[in-house]
Amino acid sequence: MGDIMRPDWPGRLRRAQRGVAERSQAALIVSTPANLTYLCGFTGSTGLLLITPADARLLLDGRYTHAARQSVAAGALGPVTVEGVPARFDTALKSILDREPAGPVEFEADQVTVATLAKWQRAINRTFTPTSGIIEAARVVKDAQELAAIRRACATLAGVARHLREWVAEGRSEKQVAADIDAALFGSGFERLAFPTIVASGPNSAHPHARPSDRRLQEGDLVVLDFGGVLDGYCGDLTRMAAVGQVQANARALVDAVRAAQLAAIATVRAGVLASDVDKAARDVLTDHGLGEAFLHATGHGLGLEVHEDPRIGRADADRPVGMPANKQVRLEAGMVCTIEPGAYVDGLGGARMEDDVVVTAEGCEVLTDAPRDLVIV
Amino acid sequence: MGDIMRPDWPGRLRRAQRGVAERSQAALIVSTPANLTYLCGFTGSTGLLLITPADARLLLDGRYTHAARQSVAAGALGPVTVEGVPARFDTALKSILDREPAGPVEFEADQVTVATLAKWQRAINRTFTPTSGIIEAARVVKDAQELAAIRRACATLAGVARHLREWVAEGRSEKQVAADIDAALFGSGFERLAFPTIVASGPNSAHPHARPSDRRLQEGDLVVLDFGGVLDGYCGDLTRMAAVGQVQANARALVDAVRAAQLAAIATVRAGVLASDVDKAARDVLTDHGLGEAFLHATGHGLGLEVHEDPRIGRADADRPVGMPANKQVRLEAGMVCTIEPGAYVDGLGGARMEDDVVVTAEGCEVLTDAPRDLVIV
Repeated sequence: MGDIMRPDWPGRLRRAQRGVAERSQAALIVSTPANLTYLCGFTGSTGLLLITPADARLLLDGRYTHAARQSVAAGALGPVTVEGVPARFDTALKSILDREPAGPVEFEADQVTVATLAKWQRAINRTFTPTSGIIEAARVVKDAQELAAIRRACATLAGVARHLREWVAEGRSEKQVAADIDAALFGSGFERLAFPTIVASGPNSAHPHARPSDRRLQEGDLVVLDFGGVLDGYCGDLTRMAAVGQVQANARALVDAVRAAQLAAIATVRAGVLASDVDKAARDVLTDHGLGEAFLHATGHGLGLEVHEDPRIGRADADRPVGMPANKQVRLEAGMVCTIEPGAYVDGLGGARMEDDVVVTAEGCEVLTDAPRDLVIV
Repeated sequence: MGDIMRPDWPGRLRRAQRGVAERSQAALIVSTPANLTYLCGFTGSTGLLLITPADARLLLDGRYTHAARQSVAAGALGPVTVEGVPARFDTALKSILDREPAGPVEFEADQVTVATLAKWQRAINRTFTPTSGIIEAARVVKDAQELAAIRRACATLAGVARHLREWVAEGRSEKQVAADIDAALFGSGFERLAFPTIVASGPNSAHPHARPSDRRLQEGDLVVLDFGGVLDGYCGDLTRMAAVGQVQANARALVDAVRAAQLAAIATVRAGVLASDVDKAARDVLTDHGLGEAFLHATGHGLGLEVHEDPRIGRADADRPVGMPANKQVRLEAGMVCTIEPGAYVDGLGGARMEDDVVVTAEGCEVLTDAPRDLVIV
């Protein structure tokens, strides 16, 4: 059934238009790629969606206009008016806005650069209102079509994870294992990787974002395997652990502590709970194991059209990466989708991370990445 | 020889530091990913490089600090001081800047969002000076190590192009052909695609940025094959044309006109020439063939750490994509690398594009993508 569902672009656009009116703005300029995709299905590299209370116009340059008009007519893009931009976006924006009622114009402050805003301000005699997270807030609770797409992505990803045992072996390099995972992802139908696959073995496993190297797996290694794919536009993201032969007892204990932290976090997820309390559940378990300082990142992140989106499952006091909107004290709601991925990283011993994707429900959560979680011993 | 060359990070950092002093600034904050890579080799997703007349500090969060310090010590990153950011980038930046001499701080206005600047301004009591293209200007003329890397990328790409005839065939889908190209790119050693491979056949060829579809190639199709890869951090980008069996005479004429336009543009490239005059050379040929309106994009773009960088080879009056710096009346210099890729797109007939990568020399240019340019007839 999921396959024939069309995204609810008309409803999403209508809600965005209503918001512009409610905030007493003349227009909202949407330029964040994932927001463009969410609102009307456009996935090109450059475009602006101008949302007014009365209309939604997609401004595109000559590379995209023709195909976009055909797609709108065929229902493969949302009901927008495609406006060709012959030369400059700022002048095109001006000529459209000149025909609109007076009033301020909102823009996405987390996407628009200082230089672009300066151009718009030079060309257009309007007040520009910085906004943050307007469309992202609409994206955070997934609708039925989105959940169906994410379910498919996660189920397909779990299918790939069931083969990890075939690829992880003593003497193989991290790059070779990563290439096998990537080939399986593409072979399973993923249209692209959600991020570069991580295979981090032995000492490299102690670095959360290690890149696959030519290092060959050897007896006693812990191996972090973190990979994801995009299917019909939606992401899945999963991490499993492997061990080559016999690992030290304290390496095994590290993996067990991380798994316990993950279970504690998953058990905490429920509509109405603070995201930071889910993080705390994982962090408390690791702290009890003396691994509080070894947990170098947040417990999880939202998942959808982007592999990192709201809600962030992190400490209430932590900053987000540069350019990401602040997002404190988020309360989970049914239909939110996020990863739960605590980790611990100890130099000289190694690192461990376990990651699953869950959808929040009224009673708790449903784990979407149903692949065995045992340490894969090869 | 190229393989053992290390990028000249010390020299690049030194020149950047000297520039900060010459512009009477206290510091320059570099946050554009390719500029970070150029100056010190860092390739992670989040980091700030704070360049003062006396020092270069790389601010990184907990995911990266340890590995980065090891890399600096091993010479695998440039000579920077790695500063760990325990929580928030704005507060970390403040505590470092508080120890620096008074004066304004430059930032990259084409990279920094309106929201991030607002955060910095709230945390830090300094004047922030928007800048555009400072490090990009240093990157535009490639040094010996960079040219060696680009030569390797382009030669490897040309090697893949020689096999196109094996993959393009009647009855195969665009996606199947693209998958073969991608597999050959990875099999040839490219670390990633420079952009999603384009295979556009028949009516789809009339859209410059078509994505590979399930459409099967059929007799009479023109097929645009546009692909690129990244090798040791540097990009190559190439387009060739194929035809399935017998194509209409006017489709053949379209391909020939585009090829003539490309040759005219390549013949115009030389140190001292305006980039817009190279574009004009291609555009004039297509206009003479009645295809001026069918040439929907610029003649080319710079190539290096990014697949689209300066110099833009376009009309003097055209705008750049949103977020890219303005760059008019650029004069070519020896050591610049760019694509030359005119195209023409006619609904109902199809489209054609031919693309090679060239390095500008005092006398003209050298074509780096040496693969046959004849229409591949299958």
